[in-house]
Amino acid sequence: MSQSAYLRCPSGNKKLKYNAVVDRNCYTRYRTIMLKNDLFLRAAKGEKTERPPVWLMRQAGRILPQYRALRASLSGFKELVETPELACEVTIQPVDELGVDAAIIFSDILVIPEAMGLPYEMIPGKGPFFPTTIKSAHDIEQLLSGQEAADTLQYVYDALRLTKQELNGRVPLIGFAGAPFTILCYMLEGQGSKTFSKAKKLLYQDPALAHKLLQKITDTTIAYLQTQVAAGADLIQVFDSWAGVLTADSFRTFALPYMQQIAASIEQVPVTLFAKGAWHSLPQIAAANANVVGLGWLQNPTEVRKLLGDKQVLQGNLDPCALYADAATVRSMTTTMLDKFGPHHIANLGHGVYPDTPLDSVKVFVDTVKQYRY
Amino acid sequence: MSQSAYLRCPSGNKKLKYNAVVDRNCYTRYRTIMLKNDLFLRAAKGEKTERPPVWLMRQAGRILPQYRALRASLSGFKELVETPELACEVTIQPVDELGVDAAIIFSDILVIPEAMGLPYEMIPGKGPFFPTTIKSAHDIEQLLSGQEAADTLQYVYDALRLTKQELNGRVPLIGFAGAPFTILCYMLEGQGSKTFSKAKKLLYQDPALAHKLLQKITDTTIAYLQTQVAAGADLIQVFDSWAGVLTADSFRTFALPYMQQIAASIEQVPVTLFAKGAWHSLPQIAAANANVVGLGWLQNPTEVRKLLGDKQVLQGNLDPCALYADAATVRSMTTTMLDKFGPHHIANLGHGVYPDTPLDSVKVFVDTVKQYRY
Repeated sequence: MSQSAYLRCPSGNKKLKYNAVVDRNCYTRYRTIMLKNDLFLRAAKGEKTERPPVWLMRQAGRILPQYRALRASLSGFKELVETPELACEVTIQPVDELGVDAAIIFSDILVIPEAMGLPYEMIPGKGPFFPTTIKSAHDIEQLLSGQEAADTLQYVYDALRLTKQELNGRVPLIGFAGAPFTILCYMLEGQGSKTFSKAKKLLYQDPALAHKLLQKITDTTIAYLQTQVAAGADLIQVFDSWAGVLTADSFRTFALPYMQQIAASIEQVPVTLFAKGAWHSLPQIAAANANVVGLGWLQNPTEVRKLLGDKQVLQGNLDPCALYADAATVRSMTTTMLDKFGPHHIANLGHGVYPDTPLDSVKVFVDTVKQYRY
Repeated sequence: MSQSAYLRCPSGNKKLKYNAVVDRNCYTRYRTIMLKNDLFLRAAKGEKTERPPVWLMRQAGRILPQYRALRASLSGFKELVETPELACEVTIQPVDELGVDAAIIFSDILVIPEAMGLPYEMIPGKGPFFPTTIKSAHDIEQLLSGQEAADTLQYVYDALRLTKQELNGRVPLIGFAGAPFTILCYMLEGQGSKTFSKAKKLLYQDPALAHKLLQKITDTTIAYLQTQVAAGADLIQVFDSWAGVLTADSFRTFALPYMQQIAASIEQVPVTLFAKGAWHSLPQIAAANANVVGLGWLQNPTEVRKLLGDKQVLQGNLDPCALYADAATVRSMTTTMLDKFGPHHIANLGHGVYPDTPLDSVKVFVDTVKQYRY
């Protein structure tokens, strides 16, 4: 697969450049590409499928030798995220290598704070770091937001467009963003944290200001995701990675309403809401305009079915560490999980796949799902 | 309060030295000291009390200016843990300053891996670090365990003994240990981790070996805690700080049975089991010989009461970040929590108090509980 292939737009074979302006006619044409494998989308929309579709969070990443080889040749993580043809290449790698039923665009939730005015660095072995953080109401005033901020993320839309073209209907393409509370955490803390207590401090000390910041993030995220859909995303997943530090009350006050706004704003494609650790609020999440509810690995599928019913589309939720077991055990744990969920289920892990997971185990997981029949 | 006062044993006024051999007659005399404030113990034993007792996890620590002053004069954290008269001093500081209803011995859960043969370092700003970790079955064979390992922790028993003497019955003294799964996490990872995936890998790859290690840790912890009780501990709390990375199945297989063994082995005093993040297994924890079930801040007290009944003694669970709010809000959130729990409750946070919590807020929390009446 030559890289130049990614750079041609089907509407005119013209070369796209990095940060090229979106060609909406071109996108419209992509949307008409027939999906050869639409199992994932049919399941997400609530249709009954012959087996569960399967993909893995972080499937485009370090578990794949192809990814590690490409990454080693680059200056850093951000070069990969910000170069559409490279993002496209790693997005498609797991479709080729694992045979998953969906691709997810290679990007990072932290492009949103960057678009709003807080650039991030990715420090090897440590994770994300923001040299500038939000410290005052004035800092919040200064942030860009909405379409104006979202328009700076042209490289994401270009990556989606190229990937959509290159996939040529093999599988649907997932777009995504972080949920506003998770983005607020990074904007206030500047990096990861066990407790996110600096971020939570704002919720308790100045809830009105927290809501103001959350709304600015939400406005930006809505513009961003709507442009992702215009650029070819077939489903949108919203990740509230740090929901699990919030009490149920705080989650329903500061996190869920903004996820709900986002989900309501995406009309053309299905939406998956994954609030990791918010085990106490699953019915509320399901009611928040979500087509699909993502589940962490602590949730028992049988209990969730009792709570949300047989028709709710659920995604998840094998313990990512289960893939360290031998093949027979992976097969048996995967089958047990599928049995418990029953139909209206998208098979996945309960978290992003860990970088040191053996590739063979990932393949056993994917193949077990693909051989399963309801 | 002169330091030499800590060093006299009531049975003969003789000086105790660091690592002095336990004088069991002396301990027996301590146990006969009448408690002036036994509210905490009465509540823990299931008696109805006029108000909930109150203490805070990590109350002996950085929230207190006295602690920070003493700590600044020392070479490091371990000097404090390993010097009985210093540990005694900081254990009593919150009783003096905050008026809490219980003291908890100043120590660290990591003394157990150290006693078994894996010394730890406490790296400022980073946390614990083990230069040597468990890498093989042979490494597990080599570990000391049981009474032989526990006997190396004389400084903890001396600290308890001195503190018991110095408290002179003002409030009960809590002893503690980490739960075996949490200790296993540190032994395999060598430091904190977001996922503890290296530790969990062993559970999936070689469950029999994991059980072997867990049993060795359990045997050591039982000997350790029984000696703590002999040295004067009035209640034992077991902290499973990393229970929240386990699925319900894994928790019930690799964590709970060992907590249960420990709780069953402590016959003379009540036991509190706090498995942070194991929201899915509260009835099982309550049934595991626990007098008191500790709750993280994500649990809704009303829901837990429905699940475990009005008679189960519960401990917790205000969000530690709630103490960043203004005084009126802290008072109102604390009162709401107490109303929801009703009797058979020990007021606390749902996690150790964060180091940057304003002292005045902690006092508002404590005083609100002390003014409350059922």
